[in-house]
This record gives sequence, structure tokens and C-alpha cells, in this order.
Amino acid sequence: MALVSLTTDFGTVDPFVGIMKAVILGRAPDARLVDVSHEVPFANILAGALVLRHAVPYFPAGSVHLAVVDPGVGGARRPLCVETKSGFLVGPDNGVLSLAANDAGILRIIHLTEERFFLSPASGTFHGRDVFAPVAAALAGGTKTDALGPQVEDMVRLEVPSVVTDGSALRGQVVYVDRFGNLVTNISAPSRVVRVSLGNARIEGLARSYSDAPVGEPVAVVNSWGVIEIAVREGSAQAKLGARVGDPVVIETA
Amino acid sequence: MALVSLTTDFGTVDPFVGIMKAVILGRAPDARLVDVSHEVPFANILAGALVLRHAVPYFPAGSVHLAVVDPGVGGARRPLCVETKSGFLVGPDNGVLSLAANDAGILRIIHLTEERFFLSPASGTFHGRDVFAPVAAALAGGTKTDALGPQVEDMVRLEVPSVVTDGSALRGQVVYVDRFGNLVTNISAPSRVVRVSLGNARIEGLARSYSDAPVGEPVAVVNSWGVIEIAVREGSAQAKLGARVGDPVVIETA
Amino acid sequence: MALVSLTTDFGTVDPFVGIMKAVILGRAPDARLVDVSHEVPFANILAGALVLRHAVPYFPAGSVHLAVVDPGVGGARRPLCVETKSGFLVGPDNGVLSLAANDAGILRIIHLTEERFFLSPASGTFHGRDVFAPVAAALAGGTKTDALGPQVEDMVRLEVPSVVTDGSALRGQVVYVDRFGNLVTNISAPSRVVRVSLGNARIEGLARSYSDAPVGEPVAVVNSWGVIEIAVREGSAQAKLGARVGDPVVIETA
Repeated sequence: MALVSLTTDFGTVDPFVGIMKAVILGRAPDARLVDVSHEVPFANILAGALVLRHAVPYFPAGSVHLAVVDPGVGGARRPLCVETKSGFLVGPDNGVLSLAANDAGILRIIHLTEERFFLSPASGTFHGRDVFAPVAAALAGGTKTDALGPQVEDMVRLEVPSVVTDGSALRGQVVYVDRFGNLVTNISAPSRVVRVSLGNARIEGLARSYSDAPVGEPVAVVNSWGVIEIAVREGSAQAKLGARVGDPVVIETA
Repeated sequence: MALVSLTTDFGTVDPFVGIMKAVILGRAPDARLVDVSHEVPFANILAGALVLRHAVPYFPAGSVHLAVVDPGVGGARRPLCVETKSGFLVGPDNGVLSLAANDAGILRIIHLTEERFFLSPASGTFHGRDVFAPVAAALAGGTKTDALGPQVEDMVRLEVPSVVTDGSALRGQVVYVDRFGNLVTNISAPSRVVRVSLGNARIEGLARSYSDAPVGEPVAVVNSWGVIEIAVREGSAQAKLGARVGDPVVIETA
Repeated sequence: MALVSLTTDFGTVDPFVGIMKAVILGRAPDARLVDVSHEVPFANILAGALVLRHAVPYFPAGSVHLAVVDPGVGGARRPLCVETKSGFLVGPDNGVLSLAANDAGILRIIHLTEERFFLSPASGTFHGRDVFAPVAAALAGGTKTDALGPQVEDMVRLEVPSVVTDGSALRGQVVYVDRFGNLVTNISAPSRVVRVSLGNARIEGLARSYSDAPVGEPVAVVNSWGVIEIAVREGSAQAKLGARVGDPVVIETA
């Protein structure tokens, strides 16, 4: 009984996600479905890749992860399955799979060419339904990846902006803003934090949790993804600090 | 193990949908639930009927489809079950079931009068919980439709605006706008398309996919529902063209 | 095969809920998951407690109910499991469990201290994932509550504002506004209602359903939670009456 997770930018207003689930359960009746998010910002491949990277490690081994943030649907980008040490990633070759794939350990990358697994005829506009959902169902049902198409050498790799070490300072940036307005950085928790700076804000040291800060005040924590996050207790750091993805963050460690 | 799909305008902020699911799973523990949409625009029966029509064909035979867009709840409109060649449709007799029912092939229409299947006492404000969910559970558990009430001759039929053929032109309209701002028309894909017109926009020919157009430019495609749709690559056709449901669309085929 | 319900203020944009589900299904593969709401207003414990109170009675006996509205995560508030006559409530000791617990009948309150049930190491920011989800999985798998920690005497009790009887009038207030803009009060349906007053609005008598009122006019009904609710047919009472949570409502019963 495989778990199949779904990560898309389809939203939940239209029936797109329900249709994908119908396709999966029609072909793999015992699959268990888990929504990771369908509100990835439209066409934002980096956000989708980050969401997937941080969700995948909590799923049991052998899970199948559908990720359809696919502005190039119907174009030249290849449909892929990445078999990793912990499960299967299925989606377009535009980078959305690459962060999760790297973390999990890539065993092989398959170009999905075996159309007998697809819905027929496949549309040019909804590969989530016609290509990726039926392939996920096949994997959930035990189909081996080598039946799905030829192995290929590489895939589009997405780069998360890297962190620069500058003396005792770490220079990174905000890479994701969650629905609470928490500002997630690309900086893994260092062993010692003296000060965190973002724009005009200076935060002294790390708190263990949001509740260590006064209500309304910015606080820096190691968040549930294991990286430095700037939050405002019972408020929005995004709103209070006027910050957004790409803004530089500096951590002084001495 | 029947699939039960759910289509409502209840939203997901309040516990209404979760309560319906609890009722279904309390009575049909093996049912599998699939959300089609709970964000049908409030009281918009046509939108609900279109969503249902386009989702149902992807579900396995024998599935049960709950559709509760029901502004007349507690009034005179009848609760119905429509048995079709591919499954069961359950909801109010206000047209929301009719497009899917027509497409699937109606076998019989049942007026749901057998109150022993309902929650007791049934409220006047939440038939989704008290009438439709328990009836869906009964169907998922194998209850025959003739146990649910008397067969009736007809139901409220919703008309999708029809397409007019005018020489070599097809005159239709926008009937649905999805969350991407794509403008879905009521015009099935003709064999040849020379030009698509909507307001001041003129689009030459059909693209095979969104990615065939330059970013930001309008494009016409045959969408995943098999009809003509006007889109803007990585943008919103609704916003760019200032269009909405009911706006006329003309397709020149020669 | 236990049902596990989930009520949070996490929203559905980020992967938080999907991660909790992955944790649960990784440890209790046969559990069935039902979302009650993930759009409880941020940090609004009363709203979460009301949602939970009104959803729990529709779930089968033995269900496990996760409720994570937890602005004090990582602070001093205790993680709890409340065993009731109808199932299990799991969440922080801040009142979010208390209304449902009272209604269901409390058997015992357990302080969740047995860290062997938690994810390790537990973060300071996401106890939904690290503490509450794995404990819910344990309960779904048959673990007895006395294995989870010591029994404690009491929990934080949330008070819903009480209704005052003033001669033949009942004085209560709006306690919840649903997504339709319906104004839910704390006043249980009296046997006779002459007039309902809210701000400048005067509504004569009770309607049996929304459809008894003219479109656009305010109406008072006994809603699906068994309390007086002020609605506007095919409209928003909140918008039309300019009302909000805390506004006084008076019901004249003679």
C-alpha cells in the first residue's frame, strides 16, 4: 500500500487535483494519497522544490511523490521519474524535483517515454492528469522504473542561492515565506549565533521557540526545516520587516 | 471499496466538509474520499455543474459523486440520486447534477425520501451532512437506489449556453474561469481554427500547449476538458483581457 | 482502522499539514485521515475550540482528534491527550481541546511526557509534527493513554461567553462567523422566538431554513450546530449587518 504525495500549483478551486486523484485511485485502488500543497505560488519552481525537499523526508520509504509545477507543460521539457534511496519523484524536468532528489540520493533518472502508461490521448495542457498521475499510479502498484522509459544521465538542477562565509559572518538570504509570514533563510543553523540582521532589524541570539519572544517582536529560531528563520510572535515577520524572498540575511557568529 | 467524490461551495475554513466526511466514514468505513472542489463559487450552480461534469469521467465505474451547491437547502427543491451508466450522483434537484448526468447516461432518477437513511433529526440548513452524506455512504456500502425513494420522471436541467454556427464562424462564450485566469469557453474543438476573437483580442490559430506562446501573450488551446480555452502563458487571460463569464467568443474556421 | 481528524491554523499553502499526515501514516499505515479545518484563524484558540466541539460528535467512537492551534509552541504549555467517552483529543493545553472534551465527557487527562513516542529530536517550533502527530498515530494504532504520560488533574478551560437571561430576553453574542458570513451565536435554540436583535437589525421569529427568507434579507435560524444563527439568504450577514465576533445578540422569547 504505497503513499502517493501531491505537490502542485493547481490550487483547490478547480477540479484539477481531484481529477488527478481519480486517475491514481482508478489505477492503484490501494494507494494512499497525501496532499503536500496545491498552493505553491503559480509557476514558482523554486518554491515547489523547497516544499518538496522539506516534506519528502517525513514519508515512509517507497513513497511516490508527484510534483507538478509545470509552466512548460506541453513544451520540450521532459517528463521524469527520479528513483531515489527513499522513494520516487515524478514530475517535469524543470528543477522542481532536483532539491528533494539530491537530498534523498539519486539512484536513477528515467525519461518517461512509455506512453502505454499514460492516459490516451494525452493533452498538451494537463500532463498532471495524463502523464504524471498514471505513472505515479503505476509506481504505487509496483511497476519498476526501467519499464517507464530510458535512463538518462542528468536532469535540470535548481540552485538554491548559496551561503557565503565572510569572516565570522554568514551571508545568506530569505528563500521562502510561509503562510504565517515567517521568513525562512537558506542558512543552516550554526553552532553559535550572536546576531541576525535583515534590513534594519537586528536580532540578538537565537530563541528556542517563537514563544520565547515578546508578542510582536522579531525573533530568530532554527525552524522545523533545520534552517534559520526570522519570525514575529503572533504576527508576521514579512509584514513587520517589509521583507521578501531574496532579501539578504547576515548572521554574526562571533 | 467505492470512491466517493465531494463537490461543494462550503469552502474549507469551516468544519462542514470534515463533518460530511465523518458521517460518510462512520457509515461506510471502507469508502475512499476524493475532494473535487469545495471552492465552487457560492451558490453558483452552473460552475458546480461544470466542475462535476468534467471530473466525473475520470473516476472508476461505480463511484459515488456528492455535489452540494444548494442555495435552496431546506426549501422545496427535492434531494436526488441519479443512477448513471458510470456511477451515482447525489445532490439537490437544482441542476447541479444535470450536466454530469447527461454525459454519463441516466438510468434512473430517485427522489430521496427514505428518511431512515438520513441523520435524525435532519436540520433545515445542512442537508450535505444530514441527507446527502449518509445517502452517499449507503450507496458506497452497496445499497440499491430503489431502496432510497421513488423513481421520478425528470430533474431540473441546466442549460449551458449553446454555440451558434454563423457561416464559417462559431459563436460561443466564456463559461468558466479557472484559478490561473484561463478563460474556458463552451466551444468544442473544431477541426480547423483560423482565428479566435474575444473583446478586442484576436488570436491566430490554435496552439498545442500554453508553452507555444510567448510569455504574456494570449493563446488559444484545446484545453483538458476538450473545449477552446484562451490563456496567457505564465499570466492570467482574465486579467489581461478584462474578460469574464458570459463574454462572447467567436471562432473563425475558414 | 481508526479515524484521525486534523484541526489546525496551519493553512494549506505550506507543507506543514502534509508533513503531519506523512508522520501519522508512516507510523499508523491503516489510519484514515479527515481534515476538519486548517484555516482556523491564526492563533485563535476559541475559534479552533468551537470548530472542534462541533465536528467531534459526527465522528465514530474511538476516533483520534488532533487540534493544533498553538501560539505557545515550544513554551511552557503542556502537550495533552484527553481521553473522552467518544474518543481521544490531542493538542496543546491552551483551551483548544476543552470545549469538545467537556461535551464528550472526560475520562482522563494525560500530560504527554513519554518522549519515546515523539519524533527525535523534537523541534521547538513544530510540535504538530514532532509531538502531536506521532502521539495521534500511537493512539490510532491502539496504544493506551496511560503509556503516554502521567494523568493530570485538570487542563486549561476555555469559557465561551455565557448567555444571560433577562426577563423574557436572552442576551448572548456572536461567537463565530462562517465562510458564508453567517453569524453564529452562543444561544441555544429556545422553544419560542419572537424577535432577534443584532445592532440595528430586528428579525421577527425563526425561519426553518435559509430559503424561507427573501434573497438579501436577514433571517434567524437554528443552525446545524443547534444554536441561533443570523444569515442573509444568498448573501453575507456579516457584510450586510457590519457585525463581528463579540457583538451582542438579544432574543425576545415573549
